[in-house]
Amino acid sequence: MEGKLITFEGGEGVGKTTQLRLLREFLKEKDIDAVFLREPGGNAISEKIRKVILDVDNYDMTGMCEAMLYSAARAQLVEKVIKPALQDGKLVVCDRFIDSTYAYQGVARGIGADNIDALNKLACGGIAPDLTVFLDLDPQSAFKRKGGADKDDRLEQEGENFHKKVYLGYLQAAEKYPNRIVKIDSSGNAQEIHGKIIDLLKSRGIV
Amino acid sequence: MEGKLITFEGGEGVGKTTQLRLLREFLKEKDIDAVFLREPGGNAISEKIRKVILDVDNYDMTGMCEAMLYSAARAQLVEKVIKPALQDGKLVVCDRFIDSTYAYQGVARGIGADNIDALNKLACGGIAPDLTVFLDLDPQSAFKRKGGADKDDRLEQEGENFHKKVYLGYLQAAEKYPNRIVKIDSSGNAQEIHGKIIDLLKSRGIV
Repeated sequence: MEGKLITFEGGEGVGKTTQLRLLREFLKEKDIDAVFLREPGGNAISEKIRKVILDVDNYDMTGMCEAMLYSAARAQLVEKVIKPALQDGKLVVCDRFIDSTYAYQGVARGIGADNIDALNKLACGGIAPDLTVFLDLDPQSAFKRKGGADKDDRLEQEGENFHKKVYLGYLQAAEKYPNRIVKIDSSGNAQEIHGKIIDLLKSRGIV
Repeated sequence: MEGKLITFEGGEGVGKTTQLRLLREFLKEKDIDAVFLREPGGNAISEKIRKVILDVDNYDMTGMCEAMLYSAARAQLVEKVIKPALQDGKLVVCDRFIDSTYAYQGVARGIGADNIDALNKLACGGIAPDLTVFLDLDPQSAFKRKGGADKDDRLEQEGENFHKKVYLGYLQAAEKYPNRIVKIDSSGNAQEIHGKIIDLLKSRGIV
């Protein structure tokens, strides 16, 4: 496959949305053809699965059920959207991917690294991110910046302790895949962080 | 765990609904406390997942996405309904379970036996059926008896070739687990088949 897959990871409020917007503007200016996706979602079936996952009524969903729903949405996205785009030589940028499942379900929900690795492998159907940008910010600062959790998002509604575990999960993933996952200190201002991301993409020959 | 889990398997039109009704009546008469469930479903979250799976609009769902959605619904059912019922010493009877995923997604959709075994293991969280009743009838006779496919069920809408592969998938599963899966010839009349099922349950000390 000719294209590249870049994923953005990090907890709630670390600035993923802002950084993805700045990157989109940068790529547009440089005339680089890119596909921006979000997980769970990015196609009609995965968006339907997203609704079931995030619905606050589904408060008693087990961690394994949750992990499998994310994986189902991913399997569909990979096969129907990401693989065709990579085959077309496009740059694919995805807001969350396999490391979210590792951090949220594997570590924070306690499903276990091996189980999540198995699900991620099945969902990815042979592809893997070329680079993962981990926006590194402790959850307390992140929620402060965000101004609180989204009341319509079941995962955001989880308590402080859950989000601390998510953060630890990301650090574990970054340690496990030091070449693929690059930590970007996200405590500064948006333009500063954007500059670091562009430097990283240049150093990897992506832009 | 004290209770027993019995699953009923077979393609469309083999008579699962009728046999489950006859079994329910038999158990009621004998005053045996039993929980009857169906897959995908059996609890609020799994029924929501069921809707996404069976929706005829979702015609381009990949086999892996489908397998993972069934597994997600199963993980929730096992943890929230089946395990508590078994711990209470109840007899749990489930309309479809892991062997459906093996036959429909593993074989008919071509996802592969090893991949399905991995998903089934994750979804079951350490439990397994004590006995599986496979209602054995070739798909041509089954569809004839049923009078055609349900137009609101995406899986039933698949063609004859698909349902032949499903049948082969069940035969493979039965060969792989000869002690757990028992084939019941389902070409006769309903009362005759019911009699064979009761004989089987008696021989296993279940009723």
